[in-house]
Amino acid sequence: MTTPEQNSGRKEKLLFTPGPLTTSEPVKQAMLRDLGSRDTAFIATIGKIRNGLLGLAGLSQEQGYECVLMQGSGTFGVEAVIGSAISPGGKLLVVINGAYGERILKIAEVLGIECAALRCEENRKTDPAEVAACLQEDEKISAVAIVHCETTTGIINPVEETGSIVRAAGKTYIVDAMSSFGAVELDVLSAEIDFLVSSANKCIEGVPGFSFAICRGEALNACEGQARSLSLDLFAQWKGLESNGQFRFTPPTHTILAFEKALAELHEEGGVGGRAARYRGNYETLVQGMSELGFKEYLAREDQGYIITSFRYPSDPAFDFTEFYTRLSEKDLVIYPGKVSNADCFRIGNIGHIRKADVEDLLAAIASVLEQMGIESGG
Amino acid sequence: MTTPEQNSGRKEKLLFTPGPLTTSEPVKQAMLRDLGSRDTAFIATIGKIRNGLLGLAGLSQEQGYECVLMQGSGTFGVEAVIGSAISPGGKLLVVINGAYGERILKIAEVLGIECAALRCEENRKTDPAEVAACLQEDEKISAVAIVHCETTTGIINPVEETGSIVRAAGKTYIVDAMSSFGAVELDVLSAEIDFLVSSANKCIEGVPGFSFAICRGEALNACEGQARSLSLDLFAQWKGLESNGQFRFTPPTHTILAFEKALAELHEEGGVGGRAARYRGNYETLVQGMSELGFKEYLAREDQGYIITSFRYPSDPAFDFTEFYTRLSEKDLVIYPGKVSNADCFRIGNIGHIRKADVEDLLAAIASVLEQMGIESGG
Repeated sequence: MTTPEQNSGRKEKLLFTPGPLTTSEPVKQAMLRDLGSRDTAFIATIGKIRNGLLGLAGLSQEQGYECVLMQGSGTFGVEAVIGSAISPGGKLLVVINGAYGERILKIAEVLGIECAALRCEENRKTDPAEVAACLQEDEKISAVAIVHCETTTGIINPVEETGSIVRAAGKTYIVDAMSSFGAVELDVLSAEIDFLVSSANKCIEGVPGFSFAICRGEALNACEGQARSLSLDLFAQWKGLESNGQFRFTPPTHTILAFEKALAELHEEGGVGGRAARYRGNYETLVQGMSELGFKEYLAREDQGYIITSFRYPSDPAFDFTEFYTRLSEKDLVIYPGKVSNADCFRIGNIGHIRKADVEDLLAAIASVLEQMGIESGG
Repeated sequence: MTTPEQNSGRKEKLLFTPGPLTTSEPVKQAMLRDLGSRDTAFIATIGKIRNGLLGLAGLSQEQGYECVLMQGSGTFGVEAVIGSAISPGGKLLVVINGAYGERILKIAEVLGIECAALRCEENRKTDPAEVAACLQEDEKISAVAIVHCETTTGIINPVEETGSIVRAAGKTYIVDAMSSFGAVELDVLSAEIDFLVSSANKCIEGVPGFSFAICRGEALNACEGQARSLSLDLFAQWKGLESNGQFRFTPPTHTILAFEKALAELHEEGGVGGRAARYRGNYETLVQGMSELGFKEYLAREDQGYIITSFRYPSDPAFDFTEFYTRLSEKDLVIYPGKVSNADCFRIGNIGHIRKADVEDLLAAIASVLEQMGIESGG
């Protein structure tokens, strides 16, 4: 284990964030090429990525599933799905226990889509029974959206159970798996998911610039002509990719080359299971070390995923988050502010090209910063 | 001058395309860093880019202009402007002489914005007098959109003259300067432009992943609450950038680092004037050489810009574009298919990190390919 002092000599800061995150050198080096967007090698890369993503979800085109890539951040992908999948006159139920659920609701509202919100406590998993009750009460609801790992807290919601309920009711099911896809096992088929959205710069460890949707073909076909946008038209984007293998509009070529490499590295690591094991190791090292320093987690352990963890601010009045963050950043270790609405928290991500030894470096640095700030305990 | 045979040994293909284009090695190397989206260095980069782009337009914030960056391709930027700038009940006149004008119309139609199209011949500049007539005939028109360099053909439209007419009529003026901004002199202030849109991977020679709008502050302020999208809300994006220097949603961090370097290289080259001189040199070398090979340009010389040039297919029945393209591509020289609706053309771009010697290589390769294909003349 290197000391934090040695770390400060490293070329780049380590990002303990939910993305953009630390990527491997080979992933970044894959961007040192300019490919034309109509180049056959580039078109082959797009095809490889689309199939690779389906494979990660345990699916294939033969099973009637499709993968659509979309320029922009993850939110652009979510908006493309919401804006394309909800039929005119449809109504969307959004299951919310954090900022990313709220964002889905906001997207639908701006698009003029009728919505209902099922709000749950931020420190509790969403309740499938409540979803069932909503669907029973309001027959107009035609689709349900939920966040898999709510990055606000790091909680993992019961998307499989919820999926059975949504399917039984015959509704469209949309899952925002932004910060979980690729590192948290999720059976898209048995969870009855129609549209799953994630992005390049999360657990697959690419660089930011595009998002993607894993779509049940039948549900995707039903999107034709429904999009509220030209750019964010999921169906048209899919048709474009199918017709000539190309994006309709300029793709982020370099980002896509980086992603191809990132997918290859994920496979080398053993796929979802291998990556999950590393992230879980990072997480366990983190919560044990933080606990030893006195820090309290925002969530109960049993509700917590291993993607990102929210910690409460120490009660010591000498604690100032900006100073804490800055001192860590000066040691080339970047953590993340909190997003919980009812408690003062900060977050530490376990995803990206970081290993247990990096988490140990972070823990040593946190101990050292607390000491410098005159704070005896993180509690 | 190297021979085409020597070229085929080069690491990367040279892109004679309208973007994604060939970028310099230092621009690509700037992507070899992972920065957090809230990192102070990254926030400083965003600020530098926004000011740098205003400077390129001969403007500053003090003059009441603003620069907004938007994730996605150039089309996403155009949609953000159209979807945000046209007030409810407003009507957009789109001046069209090519595919990118048609795309603006399509965007507005999908967004449910009332439109009128002023269609001109693809091989003729748009006519400001016709714009004036439209504005006089239809008082409901509240905004006018036009393309500066219509990449379909390479024609440069009279955006300054058109601007005077639009301003005199008191309408909002939107210019798509996608493939011209940074290399074709355009006085945004005297052209009375309210919103100018371009993107990272054109004349500034960055990599693709975001677009930007140069906005008259007053016009931008009027966009509040008008956007038809959460992701593509120009006003909210601006407010986000102003409030904490950050994007509202994950920015393409690596693309932005590349763009910072690309802007620095543009300044080193002498700004818009310096870049224009190099591109004009490329263009002049190209059209002279192609003319010597017998090729006919689609546009009259006086209407043609130096960004991209459309050439008619040779009349020789042995000419097959796919073969022609592939043989050049095998020599690591990538040209571009045509997009003109009423003639068989291909296109050759003069933009990107290419010099006169590269164009000479291309000309030698074209001569050699024609010979291999048994075609005596490009005419």
